[in-house]
Amino acid sequence: MSRRPDVDSERHAQRMAHKQRIMNERIAAADKEQGVLLVLTGPGKGKSSSGFGMMARALGHGMQVGVVQFIKGAFSTGEEAFFRNLPGVDYHVMGEGYTWDTQDRERDVDAAAAAWEEARRMLVDPEYALVLLDELNIALHQGYLELDQVLDDLQARPAMQHVVVTGRYAPEALIEMADTVTEMKVVKHAFKEQGVKAQKGVEL
Amino acid sequence: MSRRPDVDSERHAQRMAHKQRIMNERIAAADKEQGVLLVLTGPGKGKSSSGFGMMARALGHGMQVGVVQFIKGAFSTGEEAFFRNLPGVDYHVMGEGYTWDTQDRERDVDAAAAAWEEARRMLVDPEYALVLLDELNIALHQGYLELDQVLDDLQARPAMQHVVVTGRYAPEALIEMADTVTEMKVVKHAFKEQGVKAQKGVEL
Repeated sequence: MSRRPDVDSERHAQRMAHKQRIMNERIAAADKEQGVLLVLTGPGKGKSSSGFGMMARALGHGMQVGVVQFIKGAFSTGEEAFFRNLPGVDYHVMGEGYTWDTQDRERDVDAAAAAWEEARRMLVDPEYALVLLDELNIALHQGYLELDQVLDDLQARPAMQHVVVTGRYAPEALIEMADTVTEMKVVKHAFKEQGVKAQKGVEL
Repeated sequence: MSRRPDVDSERHAQRMAHKQRIMNERIAAADKEQGVLLVLTGPGKGKSSSGFGMMARALGHGMQVGVVQFIKGAFSTGEEAFFRNLPGVDYHVMGEGYTWDTQDRERDVDAAAAAWEEARRMLVDPEYALVLLDELNIALHQGYLELDQVLDDLQARPAMQHVVVTGRYAPEALIEMADTVTEMKVVKHAFKEQGVKAQKGVEL
C-alpha cells in the first residue's frame, strides 16, 4: 500500500465527504442492502483466487458478473478457461500479448486505458451484480491509469453493484474508499522459498 | 494459530523427518511436479473464496476436484449452488442441520468424523487432482477431529494431489507441514465495523 502523490486533494475531500454521508446513512439503516467495494491486497497468495471464488458465489446466486483482468499471463489461464464461456459471465482480458515488462510504456498505457473502458462499461450498468477488477492495483501502482478517474468511476457505480479489486500495492485512497479490505500475508510460499515449481491447478 | 498440546511428539518428529527428506528431494530436483498443500488462515475475508477460486482454476485445467465443507451455513450457499452439480466436482457438506453451536458435542464429533471419512476417501484417490477442505481448521480448533490422524492422512495422499485447507486458527503442526501458507489480515470489514448487512453474492 503506497501513498500516491498524484491524488487530487479536492476530489479526495469530495469523495470522503460523499463516503461520510453514505456511512451515516448506513448507520441509520444498518440492514439496508447495498453494493460493497472489496479490496484484496498484500503479497500473500490467494488474492485473485478469492476474487474468482466470489464470482462463483455470485453466479451461484444467479447474478450476472463481469471480469476485467488487468494482467494477461500464465496465472490466469485456469480461471479464464473455466469462467470465460459460462452463461452470466462477461470476461475481458487486457490486450493480448501485453505484458508489464515491455519497454514500450505508451503501449502499456493504451492497453490499460482500453481495459478501463471495458470496466467502466460494466460500472455504469446495474445488470452487472458483481464486477471483478483483477490486478487493477498493479495497473494503478504502475501509474498506467489515473487513480482519480478510477476512484470516481467506482464511486459513481450503481448502488447495488459489488466490486472486487485485487492485486498488491492497493493505493491508500482506494483502501479508504473500500468497504472491506483484506491484506494477504505470506507465512510460507513453496514456490519462492523452497524451490518448488509453480504447480498447474493451484498456482497457474 | 494455536499450539495444540494433543500432538504426539514422536509422530510429529517422524512427520518432520519425512518432510525434511521431501524438502531435500525438492532442492535436488526443483522443477519436479508435485502436489502442494496450501493453508489459507487468519481472520480476514477471502479464505474460502480463495479455495473455491483455486477449485475453479483446477476445473479450468480439466482436473477433477473434491470438496468437503466442514461448516454448513449461510456462507456456503452460493458456492454450493454453483459448484455442486458441475462435472468434475465431488461435493460434500458435513451433516445437514449440523452447527458448531449445538450443545451436543458427541453429535458434533460424529458429524466431523463422518465428514473426515469423505475427505479421506478423496485423499487416497489420485483421480482427485485437488481436494478443498473448507473450514477444516475450525473442526481441528474445536477438537472435533484428531489432529495427528488428519496430518497423517494428508501426508499419505497421492504425490501429485493438491490440497487446500481453509479456516481461521490453523494448527501450528499443519502450518509446519504445509508448502504454502497465507494469513488473511483484516484491514477493514464493512460488515463488522460499519454496521453494514452481509451482502448476498460477495459475503453469503
